Amino acid sequence: MEQQVSQEWEKFSGLLSKMSGYREAIGLLHWDLRTGAPRKGAEIRSQTVGMLSGEYFRLETSPEMGQFTEYFSRPDIQSQLNEVQNKIVHDCRKEYERSKSIPPEKYEEYAVLAAHSETKWEDAKENSDFAGFEPFLTKIVAFKQEFIDYWGVNGTRYDTLLDMYEPDLTVEKVDEVFGRLRSRLVPLVEKIAASPNKPDTSFLQQIFEQEGQEQFGLFILKQMGYDFDAGRLDESVHPFATGLNPGDVRITTNYIPDNVTSAVFSSLHEGGHALYEQNINPELVGTPLAQGASMGIHESQSRLWENMIGRSLPFWERYYKDLQHYFPVQLAGVDVKDFYRAINSVDNTFIRIEADELTYNLHIIVRYEIEKLIFNEGLAVKDLPQVWNAKYQEYLGITPPTDALGVLQDVHWSGGDFGYFASYSLGNMYAAQILNTLRKELPTFDELVSSGNLLPIKEWLTDKIYRYGQSLTPSQIIEQVTGEPLNPDYLADYLEEKYTALYQL
Amino acid sequence: MEQQVSQEWEKFSGLLSKMSGYREAIGLLHWDLRTGAPRKGAEIRSQTVGMLSGEYFRLETSPEMGQFTEYFSRPDIQSQLNEVQNKIVHDCRKEYERSKSIPPEKYEEYAVLAAHSETKWEDAKENSDFAGFEPFLTKIVAFKQEFIDYWGVNGTRYDTLLDMYEPDLTVEKVDEVFGRLRSRLVPLVEKIAASPNKPDTSFLQQIFEQEGQEQFGLFILKQMGYDFDAGRLDESVHPFATGLNPGDVRITTNYIPDNVTSAVFSSLHEGGHALYEQNINPELVGTPLAQGASMGIHESQSRLWENMIGRSLPFWERYYKDLQHYFPVQLAGVDVKDFYRAINSVDNTFIRIEADELTYNLHIIVRYEIEKLIFNEGLAVKDLPQVWNAKYQEYLGITPPTDALGVLQDVHWSGGDFGYFASYSLGNMYAAQILNTLRKELPTFDELVSSGNLLPIKEWLTDKIYRYGQSLTPSQIIEQVTGEPLNPDYLADYLEEKYTALYQL
Repeated sequence: MEQQVSQEWEKFSGLLSKMSGYREAIGLLHWDLRTGAPRKGAEIRSQTVGMLSGEYFRLETSPEMGQFTEYFSRPDIQSQLNEVQNKIVHDCRKEYERSKSIPPEKYEEYAVLAAHSETKWEDAKENSDFAGFEPFLTKIVAFKQEFIDYWGVNGTRYDTLLDMYEPDLTVEKVDEVFGRLRSRLVPLVEKIAASPNKPDTSFLQQIFEQEGQEQFGLFILKQMGYDFDAGRLDESVHPFATGLNPGDVRITTNYIPDNVTSAVFSSLHEGGHALYEQNINPELVGTPLAQGASMGIHESQSRLWENMIGRSLPFWERYYKDLQHYFPVQLAGVDVKDFYRAINSVDNTFIRIEADELTYNLHIIVRYEIEKLIFNEGLAVKDLPQVWNAKYQEYLGITPPTDALGVLQDVHWSGGDFGYFASYSLGNMYAAQILNTLRKELPTFDELVSSGNLLPIKEWLTDKIYRYGQSLTPSQIIEQVTGEPLNPDYLADYLEEKYTALYQL
Repeated sequence: MEQQVSQEWEKFSGLLSKMSGYREAIGLLHWDLRTGAPRKGAEIRSQTVGMLSGEYFRLETSPEMGQFTEYFSRPDIQSQLNEVQNKIVHDCRKEYERSKSIPPEKYEEYAVLAAHSETKWEDAKENSDFAGFEPFLTKIVAFKQEFIDYWGVNGTRYDTLLDMYEPDLTVEKVDEVFGRLRSRLVPLVEKIAASPNKPDTSFLQQIFEQEGQEQFGLFILKQMGYDFDAGRLDESVHPFATGLNPGDVRITTNYIPDNVTSAVFSSLHEGGHALYEQNINPELVGTPLAQGASMGIHESQSRLWENMIGRSLPFWERYYKDLQHYFPVQLAGVDVKDFYRAINSVDNTFIRIEADELTYNLHIIVRYEIEKLIFNEGLAVKDLPQVWNAKYQEYLGITPPTDALGVLQDVHWSGGDFGYFASYSLGNMYAAQILNTLRKELPTFDELVSSGNLLPIKEWLTDKIYRYGQSLTPSQIIEQVTGEPLNPDYLADYLEEKYTALYQL
């Protein structure tokens, strides 16, 4: 690298590192708000988060950022950078180009509306009052439509939104994989519904004391290789994981006395996210690449631990006795196979976050298709409840009796997060595809799990995925690890095999 | 106010509010580092704190700040502002003028040295190795001397340092009040040392379980009127209070099993700081005035609760039975008068933070006099141990056997905090003077305390002190509350009266 280039790079690194600092501070403020900040400080705290986010936006779209990324994109300069450096420049340039034309006042007006709209959504959900929420959601959609024009359209308008969360994937591709997945899952769900072999889940409807739930959760996290010197476990209403830096990746859970599986699987889920962030190559710290490759890849790592490992029979062959140790009365007379069947019971619920591993994907496909209708076909907000209910009837065979149990159930749209839902099922598909390779490369996979020897799995994932952070794109990762692009058949195969055995179809 | 002035004020308020946001974020990052941040994230976290502090410094000394404060200082504009606004302009202008001439690289070089020097101090204290620390302290002093030139000298060179922590007070004034205080305390200490009536403190040297210490501390904080919806209590190695905003004022304590008084009095002390910050007028939020008037006034509020209330007989007449409830075995056969005498035992210890209410002031006077010798008389760093030991012999009648128990005991100098120590004794003097007025205006003061009716005291302090935050100067507060300027005789009178009775002098 020429000396001048390396001097410029050093200056650019200073800007990147400052941006990392802002992300870390904002992350901590959010974590604190959701774990233990006193009630009376929350309003001012939100303003502080807003101010720091504004400063971050300003750096992201600054003339300085424009000049640096233009300079480092010049062919004669680009050729002097290594792959990681080029990826940094690429990602910063993309963000800069995308956001620079949005007038800051416009962005702030939108941020205020989104915050306000989220409060309105809470009320509307509480009272199952879609009409009360409709004007706000209509405005949010209008803003998003306007932003799509600022951001620029490549493909369909909805592609622009999808790209925010899953770069590389197009609506065309997602249509194809979701379509194939749906065509295989819908008949499977119907066969299960018709099966007489329903698991007994009644023993799960007991009180499981918090102390035991906590101790078991901590134990499992340690077994997975979660590093408590680089993280901590707290409680919050909705569980989440947040990576402030690879040395400080925090997770939360929520203990529900009459729902022991909630904390168990949320610990595995958030633990999966956290393993990813704790094991990113430290050399990427201070750059925008020190995070997951995409929402979908991130979700694949939480789902792999939660479902493919955590809801498997080998896992419980090893750990069921520990759970029984904490809950000897509640689990007396329930053997590990009964337990395994119960935690994998398929029930066509109205609520996405309560859904099982199988029908969960249909909940996502409903949302994805509706978002596409809004942005590509001009579906009016007022018609959402009707379209929602029709799709639930078609894919899941149920019609929500109220909008609270239907179109109002999720927070995402109130905050303008259109394009996000797809990541959840993309994560499931990536996870099944990665699992397929993992099983080939670690042929003793089931034995490792059933003997509680989870660290080789964590190490394999670190080597193949975690350490890269965002220095590879989602499609580079999936192709590099599995040798082929995203293929929904792995998930469909996995689910068919698992549930055919479980329900003796 | 003319329209243009009010428009300018709105813009200026935006800058101030942004600066408040930075202070809040930095405060939370510090709190987190000291209460529960995972070890492996600490290094990057420190860099983030440094980055945000740098951004804050930049705003404080920005051309924008210069222009705003110059504009609002114009006589025709100033006359249109209210008192609070004028105080804001005054304080911002002072900070701007003071710091703008320091080259940012110089400031950063100093910040790095100070951080490094603190680590060196830890090692030196551990090994009682003053020679190993000396070169660092020498550099720190040289930087401070250089900064004094940048900041400007008004009075003696040491005045410039003192002014950072206690505006309005001069070396001349502090010399006078410390001199008067010392001349009355030294003979009192000598009389106590000669008294045969020593309290029995042996029962305090037992194990007091953490659970009881915690419960008692929480109880006392609630009794004082500390609002747990606007704060929280955590543990840290050194107790502290931090006001992020008046709705979020956090305190920490430290439970030492064989030293029950440590947590009790640190809760009262930090609780006193916290009551101050929780009760600042909410209208000051988002301005630099939403904090204590000065270090000395802040300390007066912690000392008033810790010592004047917390180490008084009426207080324990009410609360001793609660402490006994948690520790029935340890306190069996110890009556409240024995307990009161034991917690007020005067022991000429080498260590400031272990000192009693009386000799504490002599520890401070030693440090103040030495700092003055360094900056006004050119005392060399290498000569500090010898001067330190001589002064301890003169004022306290003891000579530290090692530098770890002497000149190396405090962290302050390693971080460049010269001028800070005086605040502790100024706080004691302010507290005694305020207590004198408080007793006049609430004549049932002793009954209020002995009946556990502490809220009227909190309300009186809110009305007279807390609510103003930094909108009054320390001398305005003390004169407005007590009708006269700082007068050390109140503290000397209070101590003489208290200890004459205690030791039957």
